[in-house]
Amino acid sequence: MKALHQPAFWGWSVFNPERNLDFHSVLWVRPEGNCAFDPLPLTEHDLAHLQSLGPLSHIFISNSDHLRDGEFLAAQTGARLWGPLAEKATLNCQAWLDEGDEPLPGLQVFALEGSKTPGELAFLIEGQTLITGDLIRSHRAGQLCLLPDAKLSDKAAAQASVSRLADCLQLQAVLTGDGWPVFREGLLVLKQMIAEF
Amino acid sequence: MKALHQPAFWGWSVFNPERNLDFHSVLWVRPEGNCAFDPLPLTEHDLAHLQSLGPLSHIFISNSDHLRDGEFLAAQTGARLWGPLAEKATLNCQAWLDEGDEPLPGLQVFALEGSKTPGELAFLIEGQTLITGDLIRSHRAGQLCLLPDAKLSDKAAAQASVSRLADCLQLQAVLTGDGWPVFREGLLVLKQMIAEF
Repeated sequence: MKALHQPAFWGWSVFNPERNLDFHSVLWVRPEGNCAFDPLPLTEHDLAHLQSLGPLSHIFISNSDHLRDGEFLAAQTGARLWGPLAEKATLNCQAWLDEGDEPLPGLQVFALEGSKTPGELAFLIEGQTLITGDLIRSHRAGQLCLLPDAKLSDKAAAQASVSRLADCLQLQAVLTGDGWPVFREGLLVLKQMIAEF
Repeated sequence: MKALHQPAFWGWSVFNPERNLDFHSVLWVRPEGNCAFDPLPLTEHDLAHLQSLGPLSHIFISNSDHLRDGEFLAAQTGARLWGPLAEKATLNCQAWLDEGDEPLPGLQVFALEGSKTPGELAFLIEGQTLITGDLIRSHRAGQLCLLPDAKLSDKAAAQASVSRLADCLQLQAVLTGDGWPVFREGLLVLKQMIAEF
């Protein structure tokens, strides 16, 4: 896995030739047990690396299209699989999350509206690191964008939902599930996207 | 390939499990013929993508350890292969570059000292985009660092050599050959590294 912006964060990626961008997954290392977000299949090397960093206790899925290898990794490690409450019908998780939940200390949950699935989640860690699934992404390195209009179920709701995140005043990094992550000036980059709505 | 910070730039990457970071290559698209930098082997998909963007006219190699697939890609495309003048003994290029050269309009060459090879090059494109090989790299996303001391032939010379780059006042992006590229605030991030010398 690759070192991210802070020592507690690691990531792994797979290039997607249909979209010409990388898909990303994140590991958050905590003394009480580590957390994976939208986990792609791990190579043998990355799985060994992940295991060397301590037990995997939780797996968080942002939306039904980002389950990726979540179920397999949960079965393999015994981690608890969490998903969006509004997507219970399309996911097979053990626990569910909605707006305002704080399943672990320092982990704040946002439920976003208007995306291509009903209750996509974004995860804010210690106020500084935002982990996003599909709705907030990057199609140009160093910038953020929303899913293309054609994929949104309600563009105005999606924009309103995302605009709230500008209140995350300590935001440093936006770790996108799809496309280049933003490791510096996260709040500024987010606000630049919102300003173009 | 993946879109980088400006429409003229594309990149492709390979994860290196020994170092737990990605190796990167860059394509600069120009009406007069495109340029590749330190090209890693291309997948069939990325090669077709590269070819769809116009003819590859030049391949630039930053140092002898970053030849990667340069010779094969040059043979495949007819591109001219350029390398560091001080490393003539260990590379088989068609043309050589040294400090202050400008082989194409908008492409400025720096020869760096003190690295693990004698004449490593860095390439500055239109004043905004710095492409680096081994000496300037990233071991933590959003930050830059030098090669570890043990690999430097002359640390003081390497530091002095790199410190000059703080004069690139329009610098936006530092596209590292090894480790996460910096797509925003390139000059600030470079200066932060230099301040810690």
